Amino acid sequence: MKTEKKNGIENESESGNSGKNGNHYPPEMRYHPLLDRWVILAPGRRGRPSDQKESRLPLTGECPFCLGNESLTPPEIAVVPERKLDQRKPWRVRVVPNKYPALQPGFQKEEITTSGDRGLFIRRGGTGIHEVIVETPVHNADLTTLDPGHMADVLRTWASRIFAAYQTSEAAYALIFKNYRSRAGASLSHPHSQLIATPVVPKNVRQKIEASKSYFDKTGSCLICALLEEERKSKLRIIHEDQRFVLLAPYASRFPYEVWIVPVVHNWDFSTIEEEDIRGLSLNLRDILLRLKGHLDDPPYNLVLNTSPNLSGLSEEWVADRLERFTHWHIEIIPRLSKVAGFEWGSGFHINSVLPEEAARQLRDFQGV
Amino acid sequence: MKTEKKNGIENESESGNSGKNGNHYPPEMRYHPLLDRWVILAPGRRGRPSDQKESRLPLTGECPFCLGNESLTPPEIAVVPERKLDQRKPWRVRVVPNKYPALQPGFQKEEITTSGDRGLFIRRGGTGIHEVIVETPVHNADLTTLDPGHMADVLRTWASRIFAAYQTSEAAYALIFKNYRSRAGASLSHPHSQLIATPVVPKNVRQKIEASKSYFDKTGSCLICALLEEERKSKLRIIHEDQRFVLLAPYASRFPYEVWIVPVVHNWDFSTIEEEDIRGLSLNLRDILLRLKGHLDDPPYNLVLNTSPNLSGLSEEWVADRLERFTHWHIEIIPRLSKVAGFEWGSGFHINSVLPEEAARQLRDFQGV
Repeated sequence: MKTEKKNGIENESESGNSGKNGNHYPPEMRYHPLLDRWVILAPGRRGRPSDQKESRLPLTGECPFCLGNESLTPPEIAVVPERKLDQRKPWRVRVVPNKYPALQPGFQKEEITTSGDRGLFIRRGGTGIHEVIVETPVHNADLTTLDPGHMADVLRTWASRIFAAYQTSEAAYALIFKNYRSRAGASLSHPHSQLIATPVVPKNVRQKIEASKSYFDKTGSCLICALLEEERKSKLRIIHEDQRFVLLAPYASRFPYEVWIVPVVHNWDFSTIEEEDIRGLSLNLRDILLRLKGHLDDPPYNLVLNTSPNLSGLSEEWVADRLERFTHWHIEIIPRLSKVAGFEWGSGFHINSVLPEEAARQLRDFQGV
Repeated sequence: MKTEKKNGIENESESGNSGKNGNHYPPEMRYHPLLDRWVILAPGRRGRPSDQKESRLPLTGECPFCLGNESLTPPEIAVVPERKLDQRKPWRVRVVPNKYPALQPGFQKEEITTSGDRGLFIRRGGTGIHEVIVETPVHNADLTTLDPGHMADVLRTWASRIFAAYQTSEAAYALIFKNYRSRAGASLSHPHSQLIATPVVPKNVRQKIEASKSYFDKTGSCLICALLEEERKSKLRIIHEDQRFVLLAPYASRFPYEVWIVPVVHNWDFSTIEEEDIRGLSLNLRDILLRLKGHLDDPPYNLVLNTSPNLSGLSEEWVADRLERFTHWHIEIIPRLSKVAGFEWGSGFHINSVLPEEAARQLRDFQGV
């Protein structure tokens, strides 16, 4: 066990791309009947490296995401700008498979029930995709130090990786997320985000879709469009808005300074985002990250992109019908200022000690941007 | 903001009982339509103290939970052994209201919809109960250092506080939980657990009840009874079992070394637990905490007691029908060895890098108990 602890059972979705060993234990998924959700078991992820603890990697030399260390990662999947013919051409954004994947392509998809267990122990192969999007070749950069054109490259890469995942039947949903700083779960500090594509629509996404569908069935409106209209009328929780995007602190914020970025015009699918929205989003994302960084002293945060499931990958009929009318992509940014503890785990309630009206006012008034 | 950060926006459900200021902002609950769940907004909890950061309280003198410092807490609600006539009699367990409550008695229960918002912004008073159970007068003790008789006092107190909460209509559910060590969300290190009673059944509890009801409707069995029977047959994930209790690593464990304590005989209501079960549970809880402490080097953990909702406090008819047949109380212990990050927040999936069969084997084989 001591060895195990040294290696660190850190955040389980984080990347670790420089280890010498590959994945000896293919991931599997198990169904939890009491929680009605799947759990991913990925013992092969235990050996992955971290530069956030005693085993800190040097700034240069060994970081697998740094320029010049491309050979330390598996072969790249995509790169911006493209460099098909000249591998020595410099890159701005680079996509590689996660060397310690939570899910990986090619396992069987069927559910397996252990015999004689009354259908209580159900598992399936851990089929899916796990990619790392290295956002810059520069180790000490962060999203706020990239120029807007470079930020746009990152956003275009997010869109194109979701699009690529949705060409396969292995992806029912593709989640883009970013863990910034160790306290938010990052194990490597070089700027990067990740994509995990799952063979079922994740429970949290499904719940949002069901709530949106129920509102749509009652009112004929998209729930997020309706929320946005009310928020823009009241202005209390708006941090910034322009023709294309609204930055706001949601009415029932679960976390202090939780922020959403929402496109004004209804749009369900991030993977087909238009070029003008990419430009607008890159400015807005940079703007809110600068406000959070300046006002909250460079807080750790998680960023999650909520988009539509993969219609062609869905076996679930219920979501496919008119999904494009009632899902509305948005980005959630959660500064990690508070700890989630027993009450939150047991109840699902969150307790937030900062009113969103107050958080929005502070971020709106912040003068450092 | 700098002041705010110093005070620490730490785990929001944690206790803080020594502050000079009371609660100036009554808590409120807001409904999140997209997540279909309530969020507790409690800005009054921002000022509460912590001994886990720069502002560390001295071991003696200022800890509000220490023997001799009883005047630093609000008046006690209960104490073991009882000492009605002689306040100088020593105590083993002491219950006080949380000075910075997440919920508090007496606010209006009606939902309030802000006018002109199409029913999207719904809130209600933050009605409920928030108590701290000080488990021992000794600052540097922990549950494993209490003798079994003292541990039994703690368990009896948990049961009696749930029972008391369920005498009021303000409690639809009472959650007993414990955050051990700072990384698990504790802000004061003196051994304590907490009770938060909520005016609605928490989403996570409701989901478990719905899954159990659905299984019961199909099979006529309690889901946890069925799971227990299969686990006891296979023995792969059993850590320890006796006539009354089973300690096991669940088949779809979300966290490394997650452990459940489950009574063998179906019992839905912890608040009416029998004396013999109290004794058996105190031995088993001590046993598993010693195994975790020894094998995992005194890990931070969250403990959550799952019991039945308050039937008389429920406005929701759906759960009341035959609830006693398909709910089965149990204790979850979650060592906090991994961090929850963007993927987990966005998807609701957990990734666990330790197979429960392996965790159970290690804890079973641990020789230090």
